Amino acid sequence: MKLEKLRTEVLAANLEVVNRGLVLYTFGNASGIDREQGLVAIKPSGVPYESLTPADMVITDVEGKVVEGSLRPSSDLATHIEIYKAFPNVGGVVHTHSLFATAWAQAGREIPCLGTTHADYFHGPVPLTAHLTTEEIDEGYERATGHAVVRRFAGMDPLTAPGVLVIGHAPFCWGATAMDAAHHAVILEEIATMAYYATTLNPGCGQLPQAVQDKHYFRKHGAKAYYGQK
Amino acid sequence: MKLEKLRTEVLAANLEVVNRGLVLYTFGNASGIDREQGLVAIKPSGVPYESLTPADMVITDVEGKVVEGSLRPSSDLATHIEIYKAFPNVGGVVHTHSLFATAWAQAGREIPCLGTTHADYFHGPVPLTAHLTTEEIDEGYERATGHAVVRRFAGMDPLTAPGVLVIGHAPFCWGATAMDAAHHAVILEEIATMAYYATTLNPGCGQLPQAVQDKHYFRKHGAKAYYGQK
Amino acid sequence: MKLEKLRTEVLAANLEVVNRGLVLYTFGNASGIDREQGLVAIKPSGVPYESLTPADMVITDVEGKVVEGSLRPSSDLATHIEIYKAFPNVGGVVHTHSLFATAWAQAGREIPCLGTTHADYFHGPVPLTAHLTTEEIDEGYERATGHAVVRRFAGMDPLTAPGVLVIGHAPFCWGATAMDAAHHAVILEEIATMAYYATTLNPGCGQLPQAVQDKHYFRKHGAKAYYGQK
Amino acid sequence: MKLEKLRTEVLAANLEVVNRGLVLYTFGNASGIDREQGLVAIKPSGVPYESLTPADMVITDVEGKVVEGSLRPSSDLATHIEIYKAFPNVGGVVHTHSLFATAWAQAGREIPCLGTTHADYFHGPVPLTAHLTTEEIDEGYERATGHAVVRRFAGMDPLTAPGVLVIGHAPFCWGATAMDAAHHAVILEEIATMAYYATTLNPGCGQLPQAVQDKHYFRKHGAKAYYGQK
Repeated sequence: MKLEKLRTEVLAANLEVVNRGLVLYTFGNASGIDREQGLVAIKPSGVPYESLTPADMVITDVEGKVVEGSLRPSSDLATHIEIYKAFPNVGGVVHTHSLFATAWAQAGREIPCLGTTHADYFHGPVPLTAHLTTEEIDEGYERATGHAVVRRFAGMDPLTAPGVLVIGHAPFCWGATAMDAAHHAVILEEIATMAYYATTLNPGCGQLPQAVQDKHYFRKHGAKAYYGQK
Repeated sequence: MKLEKLRTEVLAANLEVVNRGLVLYTFGNASGIDREQGLVAIKPSGVPYESLTPADMVITDVEGKVVEGSLRPSSDLATHIEIYKAFPNVGGVVHTHSLFATAWAQAGREIPCLGTTHADYFHGPVPLTAHLTTEEIDEGYERATGHAVVRRFAGMDPLTAPGVLVIGHAPFCWGATAMDAAHHAVILEEIATMAYYATTLNPGCGQLPQAVQDKHYFRKHGAKAYYGQK
Repeated sequence: MKLEKLRTEVLAANLEVVNRGLVLYTFGNASGIDREQGLVAIKPSGVPYESLTPADMVITDVEGKVVEGSLRPSSDLATHIEIYKAFPNVGGVVHTHSLFATAWAQAGREIPCLGTTHADYFHGPVPLTAHLTTEEIDEGYERATGHAVVRRFAGMDPLTAPGVLVIGHAPFCWGATAMDAAHHAVILEEIATMAYYATTLNPGCGQLPQAVQDKHYFRKHGAKAYYGQK
Repeated sequence: MKLEKLRTEVLAANLEVVNRGLVLYTFGNASGIDREQGLVAIKPSGVPYESLTPADMVITDVEGKVVEGSLRPSSDLATHIEIYKAFPNVGGVVHTHSLFATAWAQAGREIPCLGTTHADYFHGPVPLTAHLTTEEIDEGYERATGHAVVRRFAGMDPLTAPGVLVIGHAPFCWGATAMDAAHHAVILEEIATMAYYATTLNPGCGQLPQAVQDKHYFRKHGAKAYYGQK
């Protein structure tokens, strides 16, 4: 069996978002990529989580062709693949319909940076994609969704905002590994929840001052980080 | 004992909505129909779930007359029966007072299709019934509730919107089987929750573009479906 | 030990509201009355629930004097007693700071009857007390709170609305027994939650039509009830 | 090993806020001080709670210098220390990003005293700090955060309001011991939640009358307290 370590990590990432309450039934999927071999491991489509084993993960190439596995890959595979192609430092992608992140996506609003919890992970607002055209929807919807994500990050380092809201749909998150991506999906849901309550409490509340945003983001990321045990 | 398989499935559907947190005390009921024999199995009225067994399910004919069972059927039986009579492809009905679906019913608002989670299951808004007249309330309230549901679906395929909000009351859902109906009750509660948060975040947010609604609904339903393992 | 059965039931009522998530730390208390002996059993003040046994319940007379028990009774005892004195059919009283009922009390709003879940238990809005005067607060605050409850129910049958919101404070509920009172506390929290979401979704949503209110209330209560197994 | 009792209590306080649902991943920290020895015990930075033992707590002096322990102390240590220095009766400090308290902090609003649950613990609103200047952020951010807390309490007894909202960030709470501080963090989250729902239900709802605020605060605190078993 190919990629046993990656399969195990991808399964763990899938279960992390389930165990944190971000997934109803099978509404979520995590994948990871092996950049050297050019292979992606992803959850199969519509299979209950309780019964999944590493062997059930589907292995595809970077065109989305299954190279190992008897199950059909998640129907969102094409979106994951566009993200991997455009963002070379990304090693894992997670998609959920988590409640508050999805509510912001449905509301058609980026999540402004209102607090330090947000600033610890996203340097700036959580971005929102533009609507697809009818042509894009008809000619490869999932792939076009990936393109919309990539277009939104033009000129940005995708690791400074490790997730996006697809308008009218739900979030996609990413990270250096599948588990990092799952971690970011959990954080994004928390940020989205806090921002919902803060915004409804005070619709006029402004963004966190830029100096505080910078302070929190850079105490956890980059050369001058001093958070944690490293 | 008649209909052992149906009884077991109806009990499982009742427990599914309980285990998913949609039911407080005994505020819910699921039923299933055997179309060949013209018999309905439904939860007894006001009995705690912990102690229920398949043998406790009450079997009635399609006029609501008990043909097997010593307990009284759910007081909402007459509503279930009107749905079975009018919708020949429905094999199961579930009624709950789940929190957010009930809040929309109390608010007197249909749930607009704001996102793909909704579009995956309901092709269009979640419908809302009209108020009953005082005469209807007095002369067979539960049956009249079923008529109000059926009237709301005039000219519609009830499987394209597998549930309804009864105004000022709560949702009824249905499906090919009792378990499908329970599954739809859980999904409806999720949709209602997301729509609550999206709407309060942005009262002016529009419905999902029709092309995306169609894309999501038909990737899961009908001849061109490609979601899951089938 | 006096009143062993009542002690056991009062403990069970205290635990019911804890197990249903209505109580943080020790913010709640349940009591029951033995009308023949003129004795009340109530939870002791500020003792953790995990360690409580029936023997820990405090027995007092109807003036609030402890007649058995080494612990101090709940500081809200005087409120319970005024309710027992004024409402002769009440056998149990429960006080909690449950989240949504307390939010309505803090907002200073009665809970309108917006749906059938409410109408199944309360015939009309959930009443709200008036503010106490400074004199009342200073000269026996807990007793004056009971008087405020009783005044609000002047001319009403207290069993048709088995609970009240004390303005700026929290709910008190009652019933034929301590367990009925606990059940009503749980129902009130559910009603308050639904009404919160319905009201914020549609601030202009009207009350449930009176005919539906009557239908639901009387299908569960009084001579013509037909809900449940009785 | 120094301060075994304090280490154990500080660990228990850290776990209390985790078990009460106030902490996602490692977003929280509790500390305690030994006034005689001038030593602080605090959670290490960014270590998962499941694996923590008393021996993992980091011991520092009141300048923040580690005197025992191989792990790095929580990055918020400097804020804790400023609180200990300025508030001599405080024996424990707890910082969390609990959801509703953080939402109020992000909204930039003090929490008004809307009900008796609040008045039982905070005598007046939950205070909010002012924004830091860019200079303060750059020259010792965590220490400056402590200064902002202390400035907000100028002329106040910090035990009459055992917690604060740091604007755009999250709450810090304190008490006579680390466990008291944890208890106050849990209470503050409850107060913040109730106030959110009350305020959104009735934006014009006024504060609890001062006489009721005084009554509730002083029935639990000070020489005339009569709540609980003391």
